[in-house]
Amino acid sequence: MRTIWWDDEKKAVGMIDQTLLPERLEDILVGSVGELCEAIQSLRVRGAPALGAAGGYGVALAAARSAATNPAALLHDVREAAGVIRAARPTAVNLSWGVDRAVKAVDEMGGSAGVEEIRAAALAAAELIAGEDVSINRALGDRGARLLEDGDVVLTHCNAGRLACVGWGTALGVIRSAVAEGKKISVYSCETRPLHQGSRLTAWELSEDNIPVTLICDSMAGMVMRQGKIDKVIVGADRITRDAVFNKIGTYTHAVLARAHGIPFYVAAPISTFDLAHSEKEVEIEERDADEIRRLGERQLAPPGVEVYNPAFDATPLDLVTAIITERGIFRPPEMADLG
Amino acid sequence: MRTIWWDDEKKAVGMIDQTLLPERLEDILVGSVGELCEAIQSLRVRGAPALGAAGGYGVALAAARSAATNPAALLHDVREAAGVIRAARPTAVNLSWGVDRAVKAVDEMGGSAGVEEIRAAALAAAELIAGEDVSINRALGDRGARLLEDGDVVLTHCNAGRLACVGWGTALGVIRSAVAEGKKISVYSCETRPLHQGSRLTAWELSEDNIPVTLICDSMAGMVMRQGKIDKVIVGADRITRDAVFNKIGTYTHAVLARAHGIPFYVAAPISTFDLAHSEKEVEIEERDADEIRRLGERQLAPPGVEVYNPAFDATPLDLVTAIITERGIFRPPEMADLG
Repeated sequence: MRTIWWDDEKKAVGMIDQTLLPERLEDILVGSVGELCEAIQSLRVRGAPALGAAGGYGVALAAARSAATNPAALLHDVREAAGVIRAARPTAVNLSWGVDRAVKAVDEMGGSAGVEEIRAAALAAAELIAGEDVSINRALGDRGARLLEDGDVVLTHCNAGRLACVGWGTALGVIRSAVAEGKKISVYSCETRPLHQGSRLTAWELSEDNIPVTLICDSMAGMVMRQGKIDKVIVGADRITRDAVFNKIGTYTHAVLARAHGIPFYVAAPISTFDLAHSEKEVEIEERDADEIRRLGERQLAPPGVEVYNPAFDATPLDLVTAIITERGIFRPPEMADLG
Repeated sequence: MRTIWWDDEKKAVGMIDQTLLPERLEDILVGSVGELCEAIQSLRVRGAPALGAAGGYGVALAAARSAATNPAALLHDVREAAGVIRAARPTAVNLSWGVDRAVKAVDEMGGSAGVEEIRAAALAAAELIAGEDVSINRALGDRGARLLEDGDVVLTHCNAGRLACVGWGTALGVIRSAVAEGKKISVYSCETRPLHQGSRLTAWELSEDNIPVTLICDSMAGMVMRQGKIDKVIVGADRITRDAVFNKIGTYTHAVLARAHGIPFYVAAPISTFDLAHSEKEVEIEERDADEIRRLGERQLAPPGVEVYNPAFDATPLDLVTAIITERGIFRPPEMADLG
C-alpha cells in the first residue's frame, strides 16, 4: 500500500487522508491543483519524501487536467500550476524539489513534443519520484536492519514511517526490514506533541503490520531508558547539515537521554536529506501556531493568551549521533565528509 | 486565595474546581462525604498538600453533617466517613495523613466531650493542617528564593503551585517568594502530558500573578536548555526516599537534561514529603489508564487498542539533584541523613 499514487482512470492523485488517522483509514482523490494545495496545507499528506511525490504528481495533475490544446498553452498552464503548488508549503524543500523535477522533465521534451507527450512526460517523472522513494527506503531499511538484533526494543519519535513516504519508511523502514528478515523487534513510540504523529501515525502503522508497539508520552523516554527497556533509538531526519540533524522537535532530548544511558542513537534518512553545504546556524527553525499547544479540538488546554514557544524542529549535534543510515550505507558522523 | 477552605455558614468544604481550569475559575461547595470523594477522584482537588487538607476537612464535614445526637454515635459516624475518604484515592499518602490527623484530634477529646466539642475539634484540626501548609510553603519559598537571582529563567514541570497546595505553592512558592523580594523571574512551564497540569494549572496561576510564563511541550526542554534559555530547574516532589525523588512523570528526563547542560536542578518540598526509611526499589509506581494518552475529550489520538505505558510518576536519583529546598533549610543530598 502506498501513501500517494496516480489514479489514471480518474486523472487524479490518490492519497491516504492522514488527518483522519487513527480513527479512519480513508483514501481521497484530488482532482485539481487547488484541492492538492489544500491537502498539503492541512497535512492530509505530510512527511518530506511524500511531499516530494506530491509535488511531482501535482505537476502531472496540472498537465492532465489542462484544457490547453497546443503545447505552448499546456506548458504555460503547467508552469503556473508549479508555482502555486510550491507556494502551498514554502518551507517544505522536498515539495519544491518534486515540482521542479517534473517541470524539468516537461521542459526537456523540446519544442516538437505534442500535448499528450508532455502529459506523459510529467506523469512519468512523478511516477519515477514515487518509485524511487520506495526503492531508496527499501535499500536504506535493508542496510539499517543489520544494526538490529533479534529481540531488540527500539524507541522512535514522530513518524518516519511509510505514511511520511510513498512506502516502507525510513526509521520504520529499518524496523520493517529487520522484521522481514525474521527478527523480533518491538517499538516504543513517543506520542510526539504537539501534533501526535507518534500516536496517530506511527502507532497505527506498526499496529497494522503487527509489529508490537507501546505508546508513551514524550517525557517518559528517560524513565524507560533508565529501566533498561530500550536497546536502540532510531529517528528520521528533515535535514542533515554538516554539524547537526534537524528533525521533529523532541529528537534532541531523546539524543541526550540516549547518550546518558549508553544507548545507540541512529538517524535513518535518504541521501537527499543531506545538506552538507550548510551548518546548523544557517538553518532557521519554523515556529508554528501557539494554539497547537494551547488547544486540542474544542478543548482549551492553557490560558488563551499565554505565551508559547512552539518550534517545529530541533537540531541534534552530530556528536550525539551514533550513525546515519542511508540507502548508500551506514555512516558514522566523521565519515560524512565522504558524502559531500 | 486558597485552593480549599471551610465554609462555616454552609457547613461545607469550598474548593476551586481544578478540572474547569483554565477555561473557568469556579468554586464548588462540597456538602457531603460522597461529594468530597467524587471531587477527589475526578481531580477537582489534587496535589499532595491540598489532599492532606481535603482529608482533614472531610472529617470535619462528616462531623458537622452527622445527625448523631450523642458523642458515641458521632464518633461512629466520623470513623466510618474516615474510611470512606481514605479509600477515595488510596495511593495518596497525604489524604490518609490528613484524615488520620483529624480523627486523632477527635479521639483525644476523651469521653467527656460533647457533640459540639467533637465537631469543633475536628474542624480545628483541619484548619490547622490547612494553615500549616500555607506557612510551611511560605517558609520554604523564602528559603529557596535566595537561590534565585534577579533575571533568572526557571523551567518547571507539572504544577507544584498553590493549586497543588492550600496556598503559595512549593516550586512555584520559591518563585513567588523571589518575585515578592523584587527579583524579576520568568518561567518556562512544561505542559506535562498526559494530564496537562503545566498548561492548565501552572501557566494559569503564574499568569494570574503576572509572573511571565512561556508554555512549551515537555519534549522541548532539551532544546531550550541547549539554547541557553534556562538558568535553573525547580520541581516539586510527591515522595523523597533516601535515594530518589518521586515526582510527576517527566521529571527524571528534565534532571538528565539539566545535568547534561550544567543547569542546577532543585526540588522544593516540605519535610513531610521525606520518607527516608524507604528506598526507590520499595516504592511501586502507579500506572494510570491508557486512555489518558490514547484519547483527549472526544478525540481519538491513537488506535483504540494500542498498548500504552502510563506511569504517573518517575524516580530521579539523588545524584542528579543539586539541592532540596524545605521549610527547614536547603539540603544537598549528602546532608539528607540529618533529616532522618
